[in-house]
Amino acid sequence: MRALHFDGHDLRVRNLAPPELRPGWARLSVRLAGVCNTDLELVKGYMGFRGVLGHEFVGVVDEGPPEWRGRRVVGEINFACGACETCARGLSRHCPTRTVMGIQDADGAFAQSLLVPTRNLHAVPDAVSDERAVFTEPLAAAFEILEQLEVEAGTECLVLGDGKLGLLVAQVLDLAGARVRAVGRHPEKLSILARRGIETLLADDWSPRPTELVVEATGSAAGFAAAVAATRPRGTLVLKSTVAEHPGVDLAPLVIHEIRVVGSRCGPFEPALRALAEGSVETDALIDARLPLEQGPGALERARSPGALKVLIDTA
Amino acid sequence: MRALHFDGHDLRVRNLAPPELRPGWARLSVRLAGVCNTDLELVKGYMGFRGVLGHEFVGVVDEGPPEWRGRRVVGEINFACGACETCARGLSRHCPTRTVMGIQDADGAFAQSLLVPTRNLHAVPDAVSDERAVFTEPLAAAFEILEQLEVEAGTECLVLGDGKLGLLVAQVLDLAGARVRAVGRHPEKLSILARRGIETLLADDWSPRPTELVVEATGSAAGFAAAVAATRPRGTLVLKSTVAEHPGVDLAPLVIHEIRVVGSRCGPFEPALRALAEGSVETDALIDARLPLEQGPGALERARSPGALKVLIDTA
Repeated sequence: MRALHFDGHDLRVRNLAPPELRPGWARLSVRLAGVCNTDLELVKGYMGFRGVLGHEFVGVVDEGPPEWRGRRVVGEINFACGACETCARGLSRHCPTRTVMGIQDADGAFAQSLLVPTRNLHAVPDAVSDERAVFTEPLAAAFEILEQLEVEAGTECLVLGDGKLGLLVAQVLDLAGARVRAVGRHPEKLSILARRGIETLLADDWSPRPTELVVEATGSAAGFAAAVAATRPRGTLVLKSTVAEHPGVDLAPLVIHEIRVVGSRCGPFEPALRALAEGSVETDALIDARLPLEQGPGALERARSPGALKVLIDTA
Repeated sequence: MRALHFDGHDLRVRNLAPPELRPGWARLSVRLAGVCNTDLELVKGYMGFRGVLGHEFVGVVDEGPPEWRGRRVVGEINFACGACETCARGLSRHCPTRTVMGIQDADGAFAQSLLVPTRNLHAVPDAVSDERAVFTEPLAAAFEILEQLEVEAGTECLVLGDGKLGLLVAQVLDLAGARVRAVGRHPEKLSILARRGIETLLADDWSPRPTELVVEATGSAAGFAAAVAATRPRGTLVLKSTVAEHPGVDLAPLVIHEIRVVGSRCGPFEPALRALAEGSVETDALIDARLPLEQGPGALERARSPGALKVLIDTA
């Protein structure tokens, strides 16, 4: 079969042997596949991937269980073990030993033939053309936000980025009844949303104001900073891109593992006082030194010394 | 009065005029104050603060409303306007026009005399010594986690960092019934927790394993990376430090504004397919180009071009 293969250096279409059918899997003829930014990252070295790229597709089952044969399908891209604790918790997309179609240890869909576990398959309704079905995977990534968060009707949402994912996310949030504002740099892309009645704004005309729910879909460090600036206190910032360049900090794992990072600061005094009154929290042992106000700079010096615990300043 | 003052260059104890009483405020004699790592950052230039440092204290009200006079008190550090939308939502600690004791536009507690809005005051029970009461503010910061998250009994928690805040956080989570493991670099500090029956481990003996709730209290870039590595998929990572050095990414606003960052990745196919079937999401307009498999590298090239939307690869 012909397939778009990346060997770590060259990306080219090669003749490869078609994948061999395994029990529990189906072999498909791919009809249409979509290019994701992740593909672009993979050929830059992301994940160290070698093999056939591609994870957005629609195809037809050639071989496999009779109930699937001949059906037009799309397929989920995480090939889970189905047996571990993570899978048992219903988080098979996070299975620690999973392979991932066209991304991690599994050949992908930029090929004439493709192997997919049957439990990953979804039949495509006749009403959905190939050209639409091929968007199932990225659109599912947009719907993931609704799985993770309670998005109530009327929730104020900001979507930063008018790329593929941003355009899908804005639409999904709009569908969910949120009040969506989409910000991007491309009038022609934003017009796709505007035609659907979604408020859009060019980035140059926009400045951050506190918003309940912000989705970062630019994948840029500047976009991340803007998203942070636009998220209101106690608000939620959704990171949708694994490929953002944040020098020095790898935020990709937050996305990959769908980690919730909760910034946390000042807190309630009443339970603190109650715990102190009950003696249920140890604080005495945390006192490192107690110095008079007159030795204030020294107190800070002391607090700065490696391993110092609480330095108290006696102002009485 | 004597006060530990930072003028932007020098940190020294000076003679300053005592603060003038205002309506709605109380003037206190400070008895004991604690040094926070934030103080150390402030004298390095953080927030551009000028004035009297200090925001952890216990004191006695000298002047103010009769009901407060003579009482031993601690005080919340965010001086809110009390009138804006944020305050009306009960988030006065996030009031956008707030000043912050010893941190932002308000003189702090490393002084003989201190001005605090009476609504920020909390009377200290007699059972709580000054040496304990002075921990109210940092302990409240630890309790904040319980305000923000549902921590169920038995929840597996990891606290990284055995500094002041880490030691308080570990205890508060333990109080809440969580199964806490604390990791640090100082046996003598960890022993404070071990004495209370909390599991502790030296960092050198520890390696990340997937944990439901992780609290980053080291304030280091390495700690952040370790915390990310130890948070299980769909788990929660609490950032407690504003002062961590993450070159290129300023995560401090996440902490200051208590933002929840939700990493998000692959999603559910069913609603995606349903939306496509209903035509409720626009995808056609997202198609940038459609190229045959044989032009695969060109398809990626095209996808890489500035502003490209979805490039499809036709494998049929």
